[in-house]
Amino acid sequence: MENGNECEGAGNKMHSQATTTAGKVIRCKAAVAYGPGQPMVVEDILVDPPKAMEVRVKILYTSICHSDLSAWRGENEAQRVYPRIFGHEASGLIESVGEGVSELKSGDHVVPIFNGECGKCAYCKSEKTNLCQRFRVDPFKSVMTSDGTTRFSTQDGKPVYHFLNTSTFTEYTVLDSACVVAVDSQAPLEKMSLLSCGVSTGLGAVWNTANVQAESTVAVFGLGAVGLAVVEGARARGASKIIGVDINPDKRTKGQAIGITDFINPNDLDKPVHQEIRAMTGGGVHYSFESAGNLEVLREAFLSTHDGWGLTVVLGIHPSPRLLPLHPMELFDGRRIVGSVFGDFKGKTQLPAFAKQCMSGEVKLDEFITHELPFNNINEAFQLLIDGKSLRCLLHL
Amino acid sequence: MENGNECEGAGNKMHSQATTTAGKVIRCKAAVAYGPGQPMVVEDILVDPPKAMEVRVKILYTSICHSDLSAWRGENEAQRVYPRIFGHEASGLIESVGEGVSELKSGDHVVPIFNGECGKCAYCKSEKTNLCQRFRVDPFKSVMTSDGTTRFSTQDGKPVYHFLNTSTFTEYTVLDSACVVAVDSQAPLEKMSLLSCGVSTGLGAVWNTANVQAESTVAVFGLGAVGLAVVEGARARGASKIIGVDINPDKRTKGQAIGITDFINPNDLDKPVHQEIRAMTGGGVHYSFESAGNLEVLREAFLSTHDGWGLTVVLGIHPSPRLLPLHPMELFDGRRIVGSVFGDFKGKTQLPAFAKQCMSGEVKLDEFITHELPFNNINEAFQLLIDGKSLRCLLHL
Repeated sequence: MENGNECEGAGNKMHSQATTTAGKVIRCKAAVAYGPGQPMVVEDILVDPPKAMEVRVKILYTSICHSDLSAWRGENEAQRVYPRIFGHEASGLIESVGEGVSELKSGDHVVPIFNGECGKCAYCKSEKTNLCQRFRVDPFKSVMTSDGTTRFSTQDGKPVYHFLNTSTFTEYTVLDSACVVAVDSQAPLEKMSLLSCGVSTGLGAVWNTANVQAESTVAVFGLGAVGLAVVEGARARGASKIIGVDINPDKRTKGQAIGITDFINPNDLDKPVHQEIRAMTGGGVHYSFESAGNLEVLREAFLSTHDGWGLTVVLGIHPSPRLLPLHPMELFDGRRIVGSVFGDFKGKTQLPAFAKQCMSGEVKLDEFITHELPFNNINEAFQLLIDGKSLRCLLHL
Repeated sequence: MENGNECEGAGNKMHSQATTTAGKVIRCKAAVAYGPGQPMVVEDILVDPPKAMEVRVKILYTSICHSDLSAWRGENEAQRVYPRIFGHEASGLIESVGEGVSELKSGDHVVPIFNGECGKCAYCKSEKTNLCQRFRVDPFKSVMTSDGTTRFSTQDGKPVYHFLNTSTFTEYTVLDSACVVAVDSQAPLEKMSLLSCGVSTGLGAVWNTANVQAESTVAVFGLGAVGLAVVEGARARGASKIIGVDINPDKRTKGQAIGITDFINPNDLDKPVHQEIRAMTGGGVHYSFESAGNLEVLREAFLSTHDGWGLTVVLGIHPSPRLLPLHPMELFDGRRIVGSVFGDFKGKTQLPAFAKQCMSGEVKLDEFITHELPFNNINEAFQLLIDGKSLRCLLHL
């Protein structure tokens, strides 16, 4: 690394100034994690220029998702790599682009996507999947795909590792261009951060994975940001009944503000949730969505659908080594179960139009950002999520 | 039961004579099971006339499926009921119809279906399922749906129980009209017996459940009659590669006669089958079908499909209490798994056309009937299936 090229890129400097940083190492603030569950340290790091087919993005807003939380805690030992910069929900401006990048340019308003889209592989060319061969979500990856190294380093030159194709808890980050989506320059960037993960994951599960139709009945297990995005997606599609299920009684009000028609707190029932839902819906809902990451909940979600045509969409991250709590013969009742990654959105192809649907009010995002804090307070923002107090806390960089 | 109405209905008497039996009890031969795994006793029983919406059928041909075998063995204790008449693959002629039956008449060429279609319930009216509310497959049912009693009795008047909506190991049986399909009178009845279960189950899984397209790649785990019907269905659809998997080396030749392009004997491999199949197909097949009833095989079938778009169809009966050997996170690789009952055929609606496809040669059934025996030799036919020597042994009544 040539320190002679290093320049200050941080603060509130406007984009017109950013072009002067192109090709140079940028010194800026980042929240660096040094070990599992240890408070992140907001400190200066060095960010290399983007290499071929990469872009460097000035992050303006970033928010925190449960996947950041579990990675920060190091719940999966095999995924522990430090020092590291977490974060995958964000929005910002392109500072500069590397060689060969033609469809993105300095100044573009962008959101990073952890589940990239190269557009060229067999997966990207298939209509059946949004899992890109090279840039699909990979919690084990901690370096850039192109050359297996990092673009971040400490001030004394030690590598700082990447996370989930994105690493957004930093004023500047480098991403492969396959993991960056340009959105309308009029789109409100503070809300666009939600499109990087939570809202797209939940809403896309309804629209793309399940393809919920008007007048359908829906049950949503777990009313975090993803689950509430499912509610918003079902509302937008005209579902006739949207049953929210959560053991946190505070979720009733939040769920109603977005669109649930019924709320079930399993702790208030003297029977399994699926029995209650079947009784409420003449045999079961058309669609259930599991965003709780709990296998007992997953089984309830499965059994809550109507036999013959019910579909359960799994969204939750399940760290337990236990297997699917379903017997193979239960598949013969005609209930189906599928997983959904990033709402089955092909990010680069579909998110620009989705952003416009958010701008037009067809999709409402107002309820999802419950807190806003300066970037320096990132550990406080983590605690809000841990305590179940926030859906999304937006950090301003 | 009024013995005064009893008449002889057995033997090779032609249909013209059958009308004289309408409304009367018929005394005829049946293979009665008296206990789990005990040789069936071919003896005279009494068959009541059909009640409202029921029909009485003179069985001309019947064959044996593994479901008969496991039920006869009493593998599931909760399903044990004796004395009982097993059998659900058959063909024959309608002897008489009960009150209210309008779309079937005496003399019709018919096949019984264990998974009925009433045509009126929400399930029958849905395009998404072939599970009729009242007449879906139910291994726990041993009586007629209409009144909860039997139409069979021993000569001294004790009830003989029904099996799987059908009970075909008898010269005469009574079925609900929802479980009887009339086929073209020119269709070869000896082959139509296969449409009652095995061939429809396998071929329908390809056509209806998976909707396999031309040039697709397919793997079939377990080359019994159902698995080979999958092969035939895939061949008819123009699959480019059909990989048969079986630990019985004799299945290679049989599979090739029907349409497999490759054969894998897992015992000849020094690696898991899914690794071999992925290597053969550039990452995995489009579709895999499991008809072995073994959970380790089911997992191999699942992993043999291509990530992103692979679909596994479960056809095997899994008596093990063990759960699906899949981790929920594996669903995020984009592989899907579904169950298929009776090939997702809506029997009464779709089997008549399917019978014509068999008549025209579009579907080939010649390889499936490997043995033929007189009805009296039914225990011998069971042994052929137990020994893995037969695909289908056709019993002539």
